[in-house]
Amino acid sequence: MKAQPADLDHDRIAIIGAGHVGATAAYALMLRALFREIILIDKDRALAEAEAADIADANALTRPTHVRAGDYADAASAGIAVITAGGVTHGAQTRLSVATESAAIVSECVDSLMNLGFRGLIVVSANPVDLMTLVALRRSSLPPRQVLGTGTLLDTSRLKQTLSETLKVSPGSIEGFVLGEHGDSEVTAFSTIRIGGQTLDRFCLETGDLDRPAIARQVRLAGYDIVKGKGYTSYGVATAIVRICEAVVRDERAVLPVSTQLTGQYGLTDLCLSLPCIVGAGGVERVLMPDLDPHEAVALVASGTVLKTAFASLSGTASAR
Amino acid sequence: MKAQPADLDHDRIAIIGAGHVGATAAYALMLRALFREIILIDKDRALAEAEAADIADANALTRPTHVRAGDYADAASAGIAVITAGGVTHGAQTRLSVATESAAIVSECVDSLMNLGFRGLIVVSANPVDLMTLVALRRSSLPPRQVLGTGTLLDTSRLKQTLSETLKVSPGSIEGFVLGEHGDSEVTAFSTIRIGGQTLDRFCLETGDLDRPAIARQVRLAGYDIVKGKGYTSYGVATAIVRICEAVVRDERAVLPVSTQLTGQYGLTDLCLSLPCIVGAGGVERVLMPDLDPHEAVALVASGTVLKTAFASLSGTASAR
Amino acid sequence: MKAQPADLDHDRIAIIGAGHVGATAAYALMLRALFREIILIDKDRALAEAEAADIADANALTRPTHVRAGDYADAASAGIAVITAGGVTHGAQTRLSVATESAAIVSECVDSLMNLGFRGLIVVSANPVDLMTLVALRRSSLPPRQVLGTGTLLDTSRLKQTLSETLKVSPGSIEGFVLGEHGDSEVTAFSTIRIGGQTLDRFCLETGDLDRPAIARQVRLAGYDIVKGKGYTSYGVATAIVRICEAVVRDERAVLPVSTQLTGQYGLTDLCLSLPCIVGAGGVERVLMPDLDPHEAVALVASGTVLKTAFASLSGTASAR
Amino acid sequence: MKAQPADLDHDRIAIIGAGHVGATAAYALMLRALFREIILIDKDRALAEAEAADIADANALTRPTHVRAGDYADAASAGIAVITAGGVTHGAQTRLSVATESAAIVSECVDSLMNLGFRGLIVVSANPVDLMTLVALRRSSLPPRQVLGTGTLLDTSRLKQTLSETLKVSPGSIEGFVLGEHGDSEVTAFSTIRIGGQTLDRFCLETGDLDRPAIARQVRLAGYDIVKGKGYTSYGVATAIVRICEAVVRDERAVLPVSTQLTGQYGLTDLCLSLPCIVGAGGVERVLMPDLDPHEAVALVASGTVLKTAFASLSGTASAR
Repeated sequence: MKAQPADLDHDRIAIIGAGHVGATAAYALMLRALFREIILIDKDRALAEAEAADIADANALTRPTHVRAGDYADAASAGIAVITAGGVTHGAQTRLSVATESAAIVSECVDSLMNLGFRGLIVVSANPVDLMTLVALRRSSLPPRQVLGTGTLLDTSRLKQTLSETLKVSPGSIEGFVLGEHGDSEVTAFSTIRIGGQTLDRFCLETGDLDRPAIARQVRLAGYDIVKGKGYTSYGVATAIVRICEAVVRDERAVLPVSTQLTGQYGLTDLCLSLPCIVGAGGVERVLMPDLDPHEAVALVASGTVLKTAFASLSGTASAR
Repeated sequence: MKAQPADLDHDRIAIIGAGHVGATAAYALMLRALFREIILIDKDRALAEAEAADIADANALTRPTHVRAGDYADAASAGIAVITAGGVTHGAQTRLSVATESAAIVSECVDSLMNLGFRGLIVVSANPVDLMTLVALRRSSLPPRQVLGTGTLLDTSRLKQTLSETLKVSPGSIEGFVLGEHGDSEVTAFSTIRIGGQTLDRFCLETGDLDRPAIARQVRLAGYDIVKGKGYTSYGVATAIVRICEAVVRDERAVLPVSTQLTGQYGLTDLCLSLPCIVGAGGVERVLMPDLDPHEAVALVASGTVLKTAFASLSGTASAR
Repeated sequence: MKAQPADLDHDRIAIIGAGHVGATAAYALMLRALFREIILIDKDRALAEAEAADIADANALTRPTHVRAGDYADAASAGIAVITAGGVTHGAQTRLSVATESAAIVSECVDSLMNLGFRGLIVVSANPVDLMTLVALRRSSLPPRQVLGTGTLLDTSRLKQTLSETLKVSPGSIEGFVLGEHGDSEVTAFSTIRIGGQTLDRFCLETGDLDRPAIARQVRLAGYDIVKGKGYTSYGVATAIVRICEAVVRDERAVLPVSTQLTGQYGLTDLCLSLPCIVGAGGVERVLMPDLDPHEAVALVASGTVLKTAFASLSGTASAR
Repeated sequence: MKAQPADLDHDRIAIIGAGHVGATAAYALMLRALFREIILIDKDRALAEAEAADIADANALTRPTHVRAGDYADAASAGIAVITAGGVTHGAQTRLSVATESAAIVSECVDSLMNLGFRGLIVVSANPVDLMTLVALRRSSLPPRQVLGTGTLLDTSRLKQTLSETLKVSPGSIEGFVLGEHGDSEVTAFSTIRIGGQTLDRFCLETGDLDRPAIARQVRLAGYDIVKGKGYTSYGVATAIVRICEAVVRDERAVLPVSTQLTGQYGLTDLCLSLPCIVGAGGVERVLMPDLDPHEAVALVASGTVLKTAFASLSGTASAR
C-alpha cells in the first residue's frame, strides 16, 4: 500500500456494490443533488451499467447528476467511497452469520481503493456493519475518523418512526438513540428520548404507557420482518447512507449514531459500534457518550462484548487480519 | 359501477402494485414530499407491508410522509391512483407481448377503484402502457383527461440524457420529444429538438454530426438493455411517475409527453398514445400537436396504427372490453 | 360575524402585510413549493403588486407557484392566513411599545377575514406577537388551536445557532427551547438542551464552560442588534413562518415552540405565550410542558405575568376587546 | 496585480454588496443548500453583519449553511464572487444612468479580489449589468468565460412568467429567450419560443393571438414597475443569481441567457451582452447563436451598438479603463 495519494474530488462519490442498497443510495443521492458525480462499481459490470443507466434516465426529470458505472480507478479520487457489497442474509439469518463472507469482500474493496491511493472517507453499510467497519478501518490504515459505518442510524430512525406512529408526533421531533451493535444486541436507549423537552415517561402521562420491550423488539426485528416480506432491505438503509454523506459533504457536524472505533468510551476499545457522533467533512469529528441509565450502559458493554467476540473469531480468517 | 362518489383527498396518493416500480415511486414521492399520505396496495399484502415499512424507516431522516400498506378502501378517496401492476417482460419480450395479462390486471384494479366511488386521476405505468391507459379509461368511464399513462415521458428523458452525454449540455436544457407508442414503434421527433434556440442541426455545426438513427435506436432499446443487466427497470419510470404526479398535485400545467386518448390529432382517434400534453390539477388539460417533419408525422400515424391493431386483438379478451 | 363559512382550500395561503417579513415569507414559501397559490395582501396595494411581481419573476427559475396580490375575498378560503402587518419597532424600542398600534391593525385584519367566513388557521407574526396572537384569537372566535403565533420559534432557532457556533455542532442537532414571551422576559431553558443525548453541562465537559447568561442575552437581544444594523428583521422570522406553515400543510405534528393560548400550564391561563407545541393540520394539536429547572419555571411564570399585565393595559383600548 | 493565486474553495461563495439583492441571494442560496459557506461583504460592515445574522437565524429551521459577514480576504479563495454592489436607480432612471457610479464601485471590488489572488468566477448583477460585466472582465484580466453577468436571465424568466399567465402553461415549459442588453434595448426573441414543440403562433391558434409588442414592453418595463411599487427589485434578480451559481457549482452545463463577452457573434465584439450560454463549472463554456428572425437579429445588433456607445463614453472615466 505504497500508492501515490490520489487527488481528492469532494464532488464525486463512489458506491461499491450495485445491489439494491447501492443502487437505491445512488438514486436518492441523485434526487438530493448532493454530488456532481456518482460512480457505481460492481463485480457484475453489466449490473452496474444497467443500474447507472436506469438512474441516469431520470436525469432530465430532476436536477441533473452524472451517474455512471466505473471502476476503482474512478473511485480513487472520490471524497467518499460507500461499501455496500457484502454477504447477503436470508430469512432469519443473523447479520453476524455472513461475517466471514462479508469480510473477504470488504477487504478486497478496501485493498482496491488503497492500492490506488484513495484518501477520502469510507462509509460502510455491508453487514455485519460494525465488524465490517472495523475490517475496513484496519485494512485501510486510514485515520479512524475517516472510516464509519451506517450502524444504528437506521435503527434509530426506526425507533423514531415506531414511536411516531404510537405517540402521534413527527419522527423528526423525537430525540433519542439506539446504540451499540446494529443487530441483535443493540440497545434501545429509552432514557435518551426527549419530545419537546419531556422524557418519554412524562410525555406518556397523557397518552398512556408504552410497552417498551415490545417497541425495542419491533425496532430490533424490523429488518428481519422486511426481509421476510420483500427478500432484502433497501430504502431505509440507503437513506441512512445518504444522510451520512450529506453531513459529510456539507460539513454539517450533525449528531448521528454511526459505527465508529471506540477509544475507551464505556470502557470499550478496539471495536466499532454506534454512539452518537458529530459527523462533518472529516468524518467522525467527535464521539459522544450520552447520559445512559445504568442498565442501558450495561447492555451497551454487553453489546460491545458480542462484537469483540465475533471479531476475534472472524480474525482467524485471512481477510480480516 | 353505481358507487357513491368518494371524498377527494388531494394529499393522498395510492400506488397499486408494490413491485420495483411502485415501491421506488413511493420512495421518491416521500423524498420529494409531494403528498401527506402514500398508500401501497398489492395482492401480496406482505410485500406491500414490507415495502411500506422499509420506506417509512427513512421518515426520520427526511421530511416525513405517512407511508403504509392499504387496500382499495384507502385508495377510493385518493387524488391520484397510480397503476403499476401488470404483466412483466423478460429478456427480449416486447411490451405488447404481455398485453393480455396486463389488461386483466389493470381491469381488475380499475374495477376495484370504481366500485368504491373513486373519482380522482388514474396514472398508468403498466406495460404496454398505451393500451393499458386505454383499458383503464374504458373500464373506468372517467373523463379522458383524468386517465393518463407515463407513455414516452421516460423515452423523452432518455433522449435528452443520451444527447446530453454526446453534446455536453444539461439534459434539462434540451427540448424535444419522443412521441407515439412507448415501445418499438415510437417516434424520436428530432425536428422538435431545440437547444438554446437552435435546432439540432445548427447546434451540431460545431460539434460534428450525430448518428440520429443510432440515437433513436439507443433510446428505443434502453429499456431492453436495462432489463438485460438488472432484470427489470425501476428508477427511470418511477421518476416519470413522480414528475407527472408533481405536475398534477401542484397544478403546474407543465408540458409533458404522456399517453392520452386522441380525438383526431394527426387523424388518430380511439386510441391512447403520447403527445405533449399540458398536465395540471385536472389531468391532461390540453393535447398539443408539435410541428413535425412529414416523415415524423407519418411515423406517428404508423405508431398509432400499431396500437390500434394491438388493441383490437386485445379487445377479443374479456378484460379489455 | 355571521358570515357564511367559506370553502377551505389547503393549497392557498394568504399573507397579510407585504412588508419585509411578509414578502420574504412569500418568497421562501415559493422556493419550498409548499402551496399552489400565495396571496399577498396589503393596504398599499401597489406594494403588494410589486412584491408579488418581483417574486413571480422567479417562477421560471424554480418550481412554479402562483403568487399574486389580492384582497380579503381571496384570503377567505385560504387554509392559512399569516398576519405580518403590525406596528414597527425602531432602534431600542421594545416590542411591547407598539402593542396598541399593532392591536388595531391585527384586529382589523381579523375582522376582515372573519366577515368573509374565514375558517382556516391564523398564524401571527406581528409584534408583540404573544399579545397579538391573543388579540387575533379573541377577535376571531376561532378555536384556540387554530390561532398561533411565531413566538419563540425564532428565539429557539437563534439559541441553537448561537450554541452551534460555540460548540461546533450542527444547529439541527441541538435540542432545546426558548420559552415564554417572544421578548425581553423570554426564558432560555438551558435545562432542556440535549446534544447527542447529553445535557449541556455534560457536553461542555470537553469544550469548556459556557457563559450562559451571555448566551441568553445574545439570543434575547439578537433582534435589536439586527434592527440596529439593517433597520428591521426579515429572514429569520420569515423562515419561522415558513416552518410553521410547513408543519401545518403537511400535517407533520412537529414539535415547535409557538405562541398559543395556555389553559393552566404552569398555572397560567388567559394568555398566549410559547411552549413546545405539536403542530399539525389542525394547528396546535397539543401543548407540552417541558421538564424545567425550578428557576426556569419561575421565570416562565414571570414572563406570563408580564404578558398578562401588558394585555390588561392593552385591553383598555377599543381594538383589543 | 501580481498577487499569489489563492486556493480555490468551491464550497465557498462571496457576495459583495449586502443590499436587498445581495442579502436575498444569500438567503436563497442558504435555502437551496448549494454552498457550505456564504460570505457577505459590504462597506457598511454593520449592515453585512446584520444581514448575515438575520439569515443565520434561520439555520436551525433549514439545512444549515455557514453564513457570515467577512472581507475580501475571505473572498479570495471563493469559487464564486457575486458583485451586487453598484449604483442604485430610482423611479424612471435607466440602468445606464448609473453606469459611472457603478463602474467605480465594481472596479474597486474587482481590484480588491484580484489583489488577493482571486481566481474563481465573477458573477455580476450590478447595473447596468452588461457594462459592469465588461468592466469586471477588463479589470480582472480573468479568462472571459470566468466573468459573467445575470443579463437577460431575469428578463427571460419574466417573459416566461408573463406568457404563462396568458397562455395557462407552466413557465418552466416555455422555451424562449430575451437577448441583448438587460435594459431598454433588449430583444424579446419571440421566434425562439417553443411550447410543446410548437411555435408561439401555432400554440396561439387555439387561444387567440397575443399582443407581442405589449408583452415585450411589459417584460422590458417590469423592473421599473417593481421599483415604482417597492423602491427596488430583489427577489427576481436574486433568484437569477442563484440559478447561475447552481449551474456552476453543480457543473450543469445548463443553457442560460447570461451576459458574456462576444467574439464575433452576429458581428459583435468587444462588448458583453446576453446570448444563450452553456454554463458549467468553468463559467461560460460555450456561447450559442439562436436561429433568429431577421428583424430580431437586427435589433440585437442595435442593442450591441447601444452598449458599445455607452461603454465608450464610460471609458473616459478612470475606473472603467
